Amino acid sequence: MTDVLSRRDLDFLLYEWLDVVSLTTRKRFADHSKDTFDAMLDLSADIAHKHFAPHNKKADANEPTMRPDGTVEMIPEVKQALDIFAAAGLTAGQFDDSVGGMQLPATVARAAMAWFQAANAGTAAYPFLTAANANLIATYGTTQQIDDFVRPMVAGRWFGTMCLSEPQAGSSLADITTRAVRQDDGSYRLTGTKMWISGGDHELSENIVHLVLARTPDGAAGVKGISLFIVPKFLPAPDGRRGERNDVVLVGLNHKMGNRGTTNTLLSFGDGTHSPRGQAGAIGFLVGEEHRGLSYMFQMMNEARIGVGFVATALGYAGYLQSLEYAKVRTQGRAIGAKDPSAAPVPIIDHADVRRMLLAQKSYVEGALALGLYCARLVDEQDSALDEPAAADAGLLLDVLTPIAKSWPSQWCLEANSLAIQIHGGYGYTRDYDVEQFYRDNRLNPIHEGTHAIQGLDLLGRKVAMRDGAAMTLLGSKIAETIGRARRVGSDAAQYADELEHVWNRMVAVTDTLLSEPDKAAALANSSIYLEAFGHTVVAWIWLEQLTAVDDKVGAFYDGKRAAVHYFYNYELAKVGPQIELLGRVDRSLVDLNPGVF
Amino acid sequence: MTDVLSRRDLDFLLYEWLDVVSLTTRKRFADHSKDTFDAMLDLSADIAHKHFAPHNKKADANEPTMRPDGTVEMIPEVKQALDIFAAAGLTAGQFDDSVGGMQLPATVARAAMAWFQAANAGTAAYPFLTAANANLIATYGTTQQIDDFVRPMVAGRWFGTMCLSEPQAGSSLADITTRAVRQDDGSYRLTGTKMWISGGDHELSENIVHLVLARTPDGAAGVKGISLFIVPKFLPAPDGRRGERNDVVLVGLNHKMGNRGTTNTLLSFGDGTHSPRGQAGAIGFLVGEEHRGLSYMFQMMNEARIGVGFVATALGYAGYLQSLEYAKVRTQGRAIGAKDPSAAPVPIIDHADVRRMLLAQKSYVEGALALGLYCARLVDEQDSALDEPAAADAGLLLDVLTPIAKSWPSQWCLEANSLAIQIHGGYGYTRDYDVEQFYRDNRLNPIHEGTHAIQGLDLLGRKVAMRDGAAMTLLGSKIAETIGRARRVGSDAAQYADELEHVWNRMVAVTDTLLSEPDKAAALANSSIYLEAFGHTVVAWIWLEQLTAVDDKVGAFYDGKRAAVHYFYNYELAKVGPQIELLGRVDRSLVDLNPGVF
Repeated sequence: MTDVLSRRDLDFLLYEWLDVVSLTTRKRFADHSKDTFDAMLDLSADIAHKHFAPHNKKADANEPTMRPDGTVEMIPEVKQALDIFAAAGLTAGQFDDSVGGMQLPATVARAAMAWFQAANAGTAAYPFLTAANANLIATYGTTQQIDDFVRPMVAGRWFGTMCLSEPQAGSSLADITTRAVRQDDGSYRLTGTKMWISGGDHELSENIVHLVLARTPDGAAGVKGISLFIVPKFLPAPDGRRGERNDVVLVGLNHKMGNRGTTNTLLSFGDGTHSPRGQAGAIGFLVGEEHRGLSYMFQMMNEARIGVGFVATALGYAGYLQSLEYAKVRTQGRAIGAKDPSAAPVPIIDHADVRRMLLAQKSYVEGALALGLYCARLVDEQDSALDEPAAADAGLLLDVLTPIAKSWPSQWCLEANSLAIQIHGGYGYTRDYDVEQFYRDNRLNPIHEGTHAIQGLDLLGRKVAMRDGAAMTLLGSKIAETIGRARRVGSDAAQYADELEHVWNRMVAVTDTLLSEPDKAAALANSSIYLEAFGHTVVAWIWLEQLTAVDDKVGAFYDGKRAAVHYFYNYELAKVGPQIELLGRVDRSLVDLNPGVF
Repeated sequence: MTDVLSRRDLDFLLYEWLDVVSLTTRKRFADHSKDTFDAMLDLSADIAHKHFAPHNKKADANEPTMRPDGTVEMIPEVKQALDIFAAAGLTAGQFDDSVGGMQLPATVARAAMAWFQAANAGTAAYPFLTAANANLIATYGTTQQIDDFVRPMVAGRWFGTMCLSEPQAGSSLADITTRAVRQDDGSYRLTGTKMWISGGDHELSENIVHLVLARTPDGAAGVKGISLFIVPKFLPAPDGRRGERNDVVLVGLNHKMGNRGTTNTLLSFGDGTHSPRGQAGAIGFLVGEEHRGLSYMFQMMNEARIGVGFVATALGYAGYLQSLEYAKVRTQGRAIGAKDPSAAPVPIIDHADVRRMLLAQKSYVEGALALGLYCARLVDEQDSALDEPAAADAGLLLDVLTPIAKSWPSQWCLEANSLAIQIHGGYGYTRDYDVEQFYRDNRLNPIHEGTHAIQGLDLLGRKVAMRDGAAMTLLGSKIAETIGRARRVGSDAAQYADELEHVWNRMVAVTDTLLSEPDKAAALANSSIYLEAFGHTVVAWIWLEQLTAVDDKVGAFYDGKRAAVHYFYNYELAKVGPQIELLGRVDRSLVDLNPGVF
């Protein structure tokens, strides 16, 4: 079987570029070493290849179904794989010692998780959501809530979800209507319907811990009236096991184009099917304070957004490696100008257009992986920086990069999957190969956890403007640092540095133009295009960063990085120019359009 | 049900722009009138909506299977729809009176066929391939062959296929190995295996007429040794019915990501299963002369390539109309800057980014439909022009536009389908809506009938160079004419005319650079990018053409065309600039790359 991810590339990114070993000098990570990091990566790769990859196609071809009794039926391999994952303690990676975790750097934990996402995105989604859920409760929950919910999730016994959307309110959280009424004992009773809940029901774990956005009766209209609740499928029992069934009921499973291994559900809360303690409403436990639910949820959402970027990247990476292998062994045609038709055909990797499609994929998937790990490294900096300003800077940079880390891999690693199909030709369009599934699986990623449009509005409408553009300024200084280092690497790197400097200056200028535009609707009309231009610029920076780590090192691996940077700067970065021009014109046509013309 | 295509747009393109009614003054089309054209379009739309669209999803969810006896099982609705199609005489559209056809202009016949392709691409593929097959035999076949094969196909009783690829030779026809040995009676005996044969077997028609590329024993290596044969599943009987079973056997069905309604097959010729007349080999009948098979097949292939463009367009169009309908009725969120969270949410068509995605789709699908019909109009000009030079010019223009008519809709109407999913949000990713199927169906189109890369090599390596660039010169003169007319329409049109003139001049210059490059491998290394830049330029021209037909007409429909042109020139055409710059540098990196770096 072709590897689903490149350990060599991970080693380069983690050790030669991001220097994660230096984190072991910090108190938080002092128990770790390069050996423990390597062990985590080895174990992950091994379990991913042995227990996750083999049922990826089978899970796609046999999507979960709802039995008449309302439970979920799925192929047994999913639970077998997740039991092995949990038994190996892999859910615990990033969590604190104090809750049963390994206290690994996020950078290493994300890299380890990427093996599972590349091997089987559908099965990997369950622990991925669980970790993000547990992390939120660990941050904002009470000691009791941490004992009740975080511990069994970190142990891999219970799984978690996030319940935001409702059938009438997908992207628009201001319009959610799920109600939560406070009871005398401090708990709440919830009633309402949640849509698109990944992992929302299944028989994979003893219990499922839902984090649910809902509105208290006195909550203001809009997002300011939203609170956050822990609503477990089974109430916690005093012995740490699951107790009474709570009134969270599976109403239906969504039948998707891809990503079929993960149940995606319509859930009903408090519809009376299992009224606990004989009373109406699903029992929920408030997280933090009332009416601040959305701000807490944003921690999980931001983590999930970066996670979506990783899933998109992992799918792109797996497809890239498969198409690379195919291009090396499949023979077809001859070199341009070769006149002898009786000569043997060449491997298709010899054709320029196949090389273009491989380099494009390489630049997308390695660029995306580097971006994701850079963001994870910022999380580690936040958690372990030696001084407060450094931690704050890391947080600020993470804020502005999150919409890119979510959207860019979702767009370009999907494109990578399309190129992987194209390299396979007709075979790639069949289900005999894996790449068509990656393409279908990946199409979800520009939609969930905030659509492409939402990311654009978040970036242009909030992130680059916040605190007088502090995040833009900080990012600019980071880019300038990289440019300075790159100019010392060599003439190619210096050339790229000049190009990046030019494009970044244009991004700054057009950002100023848009932020100073008094008509906000016009300024934000093309925010998706702003997002895309910003994304390509950021990834060009990340590629230049990688080139500074390559420096003058010798070998095919490093030459591959050089070729990918060359490709990215020559074939990709140039796409940004026309986008910036368009943005600079503050084209109002989308705002002014009469929808009757369609 | 939402319409699958816009009759209003077809009327505009056919009558207000391409003036197909003027064709009725030509001898070939003298029996026709606007009334007969309208009747054909009405009938097609009606049958497409009533009998093709309803089983589109069902055919996708229940793909054909191979029974133990080697026959194909599929849902009955496919045959029911095709029987109604045949009974209405719809296969006959484009064919001459003399073979039982309606002798309709190709422009009208293609427009009529587009209804079926938009309603159900999988079912529509059978008559589409049949018509292209019959058209080849009508052109190059003997009177006997026309009587034996063309008549039953035009009558809709028999279906046809094209058999080019083999398992080891997809794009590389030089490497096909199927053998044909001449017999004393002038017929041939064929042995070999053909892969990716759409409609290659089924129980939908009395007989299946395969057009097969094969090599005679004395044939030279490469494409110069290839001949073309008619190999029917059942040999023709003297009474015009099917006779003895021929030795063409279904070996397997391909299991595809989309386009599942069309059987796609691995066929064995002459493997001994049904040796006719007790002798080994499938019986075939030579078309034209030996060793000229590929040149004959190119007629069918070119027709099929334009047809692929139409299928891609039709799928894009159907998705566009569905997402437009959804955007009008789905409410979500509020206008930028609207502060009152208790106000009712707005239809999502009010959001700028949704409008952008609708305009993009509109500019892709209407642009692609216009391009396809323009090409069909060139076919009519070839068939009916009053003088020889006009017919030759039409043929030359068609030659250079064919790779664009195939590749551009395949790329951008697939992108349209992706945007249609995006507008639907999570719902669009589910199989409860149609758009995910369109996206899966459409992903085939950049692969079959010559991949994207093959189209690029055809355009840059052959079409723009042929006859000292005669096709480029002719296309340039057509574009200049349009530019001249556009400058008289108004200031917006004049502005677009300037932009198109600028881009076209750059395309001409970069074409000269590439054609004069002595290193052919370097010149052709980026031919896919050349194809894309050329495609966007051509479609910009087609949009300007449409604008000249809009002129100063009043109404929402015409304003929609104006909005789409504005979108295309502001958001799309600018993408060409960086591509031309890259091409102008004759970047050798793809050629020089050491494949060991991957």
